[in-house]
Amino acid sequence: MSGDVVFDFARAERIGLSEAVFCAGKTPQQIAAILQSASERDAGLLLTRLDAEKFAALPGELKAATEWCPLSQTAFFGPVPPVSSAGTIAIVAAGTSDAPAAREAERTLRHAGVEASVIIDVGVAGLWRLMDRIEEIRRFPVVIAVAGMDAALASVLGGLYSGSLICVPTSVGYGAAEEGRTALNAMLASCAPGLVITNIDNGYGAACAALRMLGVMKLR
Amino acid sequence: MSGDVVFDFARAERIGLSEAVFCAGKTPQQIAAILQSASERDAGLLLTRLDAEKFAALPGELKAATEWCPLSQTAFFGPVPPVSSAGTIAIVAAGTSDAPAAREAERTLRHAGVEASVIIDVGVAGLWRLMDRIEEIRRFPVVIAVAGMDAALASVLGGLYSGSLICVPTSVGYGAAEEGRTALNAMLASCAPGLVITNIDNGYGAACAALRMLGVMKLR
Amino acid sequence: MSGDVVFDFARAERIGLSEAVFCAGKTPQQIAAILQSASERDAGLLLTRLDAEKFAALPGELKAATEWCPLSQTAFFGPVPPVSSAGTIAIVAAGTSDAPAAREAERTLRHAGVEASVIIDVGVAGLWRLMDRIEEIRRFPVVIAVAGMDAALASVLGGLYSGSLICVPTSVGYGAAEEGRTALNAMLASCAPGLVITNIDNGYGAACAALRMLGVMKLR
Amino acid sequence: MSGDVVFDFARAERIGLSEAVFCAGKTPQQIAAILQSASERDAGLLLTRLDAEKFAALPGELKAATEWCPLSQTAFFGPVPPVSSAGTIAIVAAGTSDAPAAREAERTLRHAGVEASVIIDVGVAGLWRLMDRIEEIRRFPVVIAVAGMDAALASVLGGLYSGSLICVPTSVGYGAAEEGRTALNAMLASCAPGLVITNIDNGYGAACAALRMLGVMKLR
Amino acid sequence: MSGDVVFDFARAERIGLSEAVFCAGKTPQQIAAILQSASERDAGLLLTRLDAEKFAALPGELKAATEWCPLSQTAFFGPVPPVSSAGTIAIVAAGTSDAPAAREAERTLRHAGVEASVIIDVGVAGLWRLMDRIEEIRRFPVVIAVAGMDAALASVLGGLYSGSLICVPTSVGYGAAEEGRTALNAMLASCAPGLVITNIDNGYGAACAALRMLGVMKLR
Amino acid sequence: MSGDVVFDFARAERIGLSEAVFCAGKTPQQIAAILQSASERDAGLLLTRLDAEKFAALPGELKAATEWCPLSQTAFFGPVPPVSSAGTIAIVAAGTSDAPAAREAERTLRHAGVEASVIIDVGVAGLWRLMDRIEEIRRFPVVIAVAGMDAALASVLGGLYSGSLICVPTSVGYGAAEEGRTALNAMLASCAPGLVITNIDNGYGAACAALRMLGVMKLR
Amino acid sequence: MSGDVVFDFARAERIGLSEAVFCAGKTPQQIAAILQSASERDAGLLLTRLDAEKFAALPGELKAATEWCPLSQTAFFGPVPPVSSAGTIAIVAAGTSDAPAAREAERTLRHAGVEASVIIDVGVAGLWRLMDRIEEIRRFPVVIAVAGMDAALASVLGGLYSGSLICVPTSVGYGAAEEGRTALNAMLASCAPGLVITNIDNGYGAACAALRMLGVMKLR
Amino acid sequence: MSGDVVFDFARAERIGLSEAVFCAGKTPQQIAAILQSASERDAGLLLTRLDAEKFAALPGELKAATEWCPLSQTAFFGPVPPVSSAGTIAIVAAGTSDAPAAREAERTLRHAGVEASVIIDVGVAGLWRLMDRIEEIRRFPVVIAVAGMDAALASVLGGLYSGSLICVPTSVGYGAAEEGRTALNAMLASCAPGLVITNIDNGYGAACAALRMLGVMKLR
Repeated sequence: MSGDVVFDFARAERIGLSEAVFCAGKTPQQIAAILQSASERDAGLLLTRLDAEKFAALPGELKAATEWCPLSQTAFFGPVPPVSSAGTIAIVAAGTSDAPAAREAERTLRHAGVEASVIIDVGVAGLWRLMDRIEEIRRFPVVIAVAGMDAALASVLGGLYSGSLICVPTSVGYGAAEEGRTALNAMLASCAPGLVITNIDNGYGAACAALRMLGVMKLR
Repeated sequence: MSGDVVFDFARAERIGLSEAVFCAGKTPQQIAAILQSASERDAGLLLTRLDAEKFAALPGELKAATEWCPLSQTAFFGPVPPVSSAGTIAIVAAGTSDAPAAREAERTLRHAGVEASVIIDVGVAGLWRLMDRIEEIRRFPVVIAVAGMDAALASVLGGLYSGSLICVPTSVGYGAAEEGRTALNAMLASCAPGLVITNIDNGYGAACAALRMLGVMKLR
Repeated sequence: MSGDVVFDFARAERIGLSEAVFCAGKTPQQIAAILQSASERDAGLLLTRLDAEKFAALPGELKAATEWCPLSQTAFFGPVPPVSSAGTIAIVAAGTSDAPAAREAERTLRHAGVEASVIIDVGVAGLWRLMDRIEEIRRFPVVIAVAGMDAALASVLGGLYSGSLICVPTSVGYGAAEEGRTALNAMLASCAPGLVITNIDNGYGAACAALRMLGVMKLR
Repeated sequence: MSGDVVFDFARAERIGLSEAVFCAGKTPQQIAAILQSASERDAGLLLTRLDAEKFAALPGELKAATEWCPLSQTAFFGPVPPVSSAGTIAIVAAGTSDAPAAREAERTLRHAGVEASVIIDVGVAGLWRLMDRIEEIRRFPVVIAVAGMDAALASVLGGLYSGSLICVPTSVGYGAAEEGRTALNAMLASCAPGLVITNIDNGYGAACAALRMLGVMKLR
Repeated sequence: MSGDVVFDFARAERIGLSEAVFCAGKTPQQIAAILQSASERDAGLLLTRLDAEKFAALPGELKAATEWCPLSQTAFFGPVPPVSSAGTIAIVAAGTSDAPAAREAERTLRHAGVEASVIIDVGVAGLWRLMDRIEEIRRFPVVIAVAGMDAALASVLGGLYSGSLICVPTSVGYGAAEEGRTALNAMLASCAPGLVITNIDNGYGAACAALRMLGVMKLR
Repeated sequence: MSGDVVFDFARAERIGLSEAVFCAGKTPQQIAAILQSASERDAGLLLTRLDAEKFAALPGELKAATEWCPLSQTAFFGPVPPVSSAGTIAIVAAGTSDAPAAREAERTLRHAGVEASVIIDVGVAGLWRLMDRIEEIRRFPVVIAVAGMDAALASVLGGLYSGSLICVPTSVGYGAAEEGRTALNAMLASCAPGLVITNIDNGYGAACAALRMLGVMKLR
Repeated sequence: MSGDVVFDFARAERIGLSEAVFCAGKTPQQIAAILQSASERDAGLLLTRLDAEKFAALPGELKAATEWCPLSQTAFFGPVPPVSSAGTIAIVAAGTSDAPAAREAERTLRHAGVEASVIIDVGVAGLWRLMDRIEEIRRFPVVIAVAGMDAALASVLGGLYSGSLICVPTSVGYGAAEEGRTALNAMLASCAPGLVITNIDNGYGAACAALRMLGVMKLR
Repeated sequence: MSGDVVFDFARAERIGLSEAVFCAGKTPQQIAAILQSASERDAGLLLTRLDAEKFAALPGELKAATEWCPLSQTAFFGPVPPVSSAGTIAIVAAGTSDAPAAREAERTLRHAGVEASVIIDVGVAGLWRLMDRIEEIRRFPVVIAVAGMDAALASVLGGLYSGSLICVPTSVGYGAAEEGRTALNAMLASCAPGLVITNIDNGYGAACAALRMLGVMKLR
């Protein structure tokens, strides 16, 4: 079975984006094998969707080298780059329940050396919460907006802010929220122009998209 | 075939709400038969979903007695009650494309003697448009909010306005708008508390719900 | 992580509706933090979707100040307002399995000082059960109808009762009931005019809609 | 292309049910070829889903031998058996818009020599219409119930009538009616026990099911 | 909470069909309350969807009076009528995995005094299994066909058998089987004429439909 | 706009399968440009989904060089290879309405020099039709099975025939047939082992898959 | 009805993005009213989803001032800004059928003064087509990838190119392509990290997102 | 209950394909009964979807005769045929998470005496991984491609490889991956011609299809 565990350490160099270990479909044994392999190369790794049970099942010395965040279910294994960039990316979440995806984005950026600002609980059902902070938000060239249920935050923000707006629908809600499908569709169908969207709960992907944009700037 | 055409004139009295002829599934012949029967009783009728082609196909004298509105595809046949109530209901629509459902609601209310105020193009992608009129909207005890696509207007309004808020999703949009299903789900999953929703494009139903609420007041 | 826990105590005053803590997406730690914060302000709170496991995990003194109802999975924390209104709202449920949503609506209203009447097991597959109580139901200006499966209760009631009818579809049923989607769609597509609908199992939302209607009356 | 047109005249004998030509997916040329072949065998045929355009495109002498009903879009070609049975089957439809499916069932039964009784416009949003005729309906051992939108008629009838109840959902309605899917699901999820369901708008299938039941009786 | 537990013992008499306690949405406490109430009236009850955990949680003396079948998750509480009819109904299932729904139908019929014959594992992927027993099946005026996945058994049987064919789709399968929706749709869309369908896994409903048909015969 | 019309004549050589012009999303002008370009290279082309209107709109000399089949909506432009293989592939269709997809497969194979045998109207609702021809079918190493509605033909054939079985679901049917989705899912969920499936109505794809299989043999 | 036609000329200034007239839900009269109003202000406008029929129905002098592109169904009304930026954005489309969305993006950018490069027919089923041009594509900091059906182009490009990648799913395809939903979902679920997605066929939205990114650069 | 456990040992001979015990819907008791019966006939069996819990629950001597693979959840009971064929089938999987379905295919082939080659982690988001091995893959006449999420591997491979390509979508991914439905649809809608598809996660079915193809060769 170990022959099935492959990890492409060369990829990060080629694509220039942080490669992560997506743990949702892997057993603790498979994750441990990847960490062991990274350890032998002195490579640092970001782990996503690492739940408490799998983290607990890692061998002791690997676990000790792993900084795990229960809210975002992410972990840093081995060396983490120093902060090389700050003030370019804000992560804005509608409510407390959206925090896991927001924090996943924040941690992914941090693992790539980018420090993001996080603003939580500005959902538009209480519009004053967003209006109180809109000037602060406008200072960032890239904003990641995280919202579930009706995802109305994305549309309102899209009309108030003219920079790059990466939208992350979350699976927060029940019934007609359809496990995030409604938030996803509402963001896609938003009448605010120029929003771009990631998969449901995909804070990691939104962070990668932001990193692509920062790269864009470098290229010029 | 004419034996299949039945219309329950007694119903309006029993339920106390305006009975309407829903024309979408009926042939011009069937509609004409109902109008003829109403004409013999001197009864007035509201017709909904009456498109241009069916209206044109009505016999001349029936057509002459019918006041048809192409935008809302509604018609008044025969006597229309005088205005007996005004200032209680506002109809608020996100954009020009939502006007047909908004006007269907307005005309249904008018046929029941209630004059509603209509405010169009206050979609939240341009938030200032709504904020400019929010004080005016707050004066009405009942508001019908009409919006398609992401339907974010409903959530924002639900946080700014404390009266009864009847939401009508519309089929405006394409792709992920899913012919109104996204607007419907977003309204149902809204984090603004206490919104109530009707079927997609159902301006008639929203007007009837508002009439039920006015009736509520009478009962006390 | 505690920085992600925010609760908007000012909101209840602004919107004029009972703010509730939706516990489904929150950890016991997050819920406890909110309760602690409310305790410090002497504020009362309604908690919804609080399951037995989370309730049991609350710290002792917070749990002691919490009156929990296992059927509706709601709780009252701290002071509850006295009954200020009664006789205006009836909650009508099709069957025993619909009781959780019906009781969630009742408890939400009670937390806002409104005493509702609850009538359970009047599903229309046994029509006599509804007919036996229809006169009693007609005395209320606002009725909340709770039903799952085919939700036929809503349509029948919509034809027999002329007041405001707020419909709550429930996730009761299996297979083609599609976890409440069929009841939701049947209520939305009902041929009884003027029904308004909330999200699936959303007794809280229906109660808030009823409170908006009572507010309507006050405004006049 | 004519090699692709096959019709199994032997089938009616084998299965003992009326074989019909389903015209929806066939060209006028293909339909004409089948009629010609039937004509040569002196066989009678029932045609379903034959729209006005296709009927008009049939060759003159074949058209002359065809008795076409525009409402149900069915036709009788050639000899029709005399009425051999009556008083066993009632077809009950919720509204005028459901008449096409109801008439398709009636015509299918008639082509098999069974005369059914048709009762239209007893939808439960006006419950008195059904109650006025329930005693008449109870006299039939088999009832075909035809309804669209919320299909609440099926559940109410299922609680008032103890014979065989074959339910036909129709595509009447819009938005959340989902082209008949909601009526179909509501009938399947009905809490009235022992309802059986056919495909959407499938009056032909309901009639065949009724014929199977009549055959059941013969077998004993 | 006990005020929410209602059971309509009068219903069985009115509708003439076996009333059952659907346990899926009920707590052991609620089920026990209904059994207690039945016990006081010396009434027998059929329980459906009673899983092992709930059965184990019933109070000892009630459990002792309950004959529970783990495969079909049904139970007989109290007196069971003697067999009054046999040889009229066959239950035919495609595979071993379809046995629970088939046995639910069998037990429902048995509780109403009707002894059915059960034939399992005649799925059409091995056509000879069905052909070996088709003559036996043809002797029954009513057949209940139970199948999941592609449900092809229903179509093949519908072409070989001319009596009443009640089809029960099951949730057997994975992926494109879509938890029974594919079997349901395939049965509804079958080209074999006159099949009638129940909800997914609804063996109870199919049995009730068969009882309605037997009643039909009595009425004549 | 003509810069957007590109056709990859080199592809057929690279992939070794017949490249076709899929006309559904193209204007007559775009199709004509491709034909003109093929004409200049003396290349033959297969056109699929070419409807009557587009065929009629082609310029005269291009139309003259095009052999069009109205049933399958395919056309041969320019030289067609001689028949180089026969007796290896049978195309089996459930009914007359499935003929267009069956003929699309036949014509695609013919354009690649392979003559297939076509057997239409062996749907399993009349099982004897299939049984009469099963020995003939078994002689072919590859069978393409074409069926809509419930697609039960695929499962039955899969149990009677042990060669390669490529299944093409068709959009034949209405309501619960869901425009071919039910046939597709039923084929995917079939309990007959080893069926492989193409897109709905994709006779062209099934033919290409068969050509891949014939190539397989060549490779050995 | 003209009171329902509103156009927010102030919006472009506020949000800093090109405001466009979405013509799909508007009548020619409504479009003409907006153009007239723009004409009076000497404002230029971009029109999207303007089909041939509506363009033809515009009054003569307005039509004369409108430069219409039939492929992309866009039009420039009045003054168009000069090209102010080039070489920053490439639009890459999988096939000829994706050209309409690609051209809508190109025209939207052009109307904002940005000249994009368009590369069509590099779908990955013929991988060499993409590989031939990948170096050219890598020179652009922002790429808009347009693809329908399986949308595999997006994933392959996402692994070969490290700049900002905005993905536009198109409705090209049939059956399981589900009118663009499959391409949308495949892009959202891509394992290539950091892709961002717009609504189906939304070339306009992708162009606006690219403009937001260019604005980002300006802000620094 | 044991009467419901049937296993058709004759089938393998008739259909010429390996019959397997699909354990997902069966209890350990039912599985044990089948194994016991196989043991008495000295028959070997392949078991699929046998999870750790069920395997552990088998009686000791049956478990001892069972070679279980935890990754693929398959088991070999009793005698396994020797390898009779090799070098004809490659199984190519996009990533580590797709290994279970890939290994299910490999084990199914092995149980039929066919040794397949397995190549894992060649997903196209890192195209070089596939290109490094494409020449090796091209040597096999039949390839089984296993991929989840966007399933882009199938389309790219379909353009690079001309043999038989059997595609297995997997349920790997979240959100818009829709439990494998997106991979399934993307494979069905692929623009690479001649792909054939199995059910989601159906490695067993893909192996059976490959065996049918090998049989094809034998027949000639």
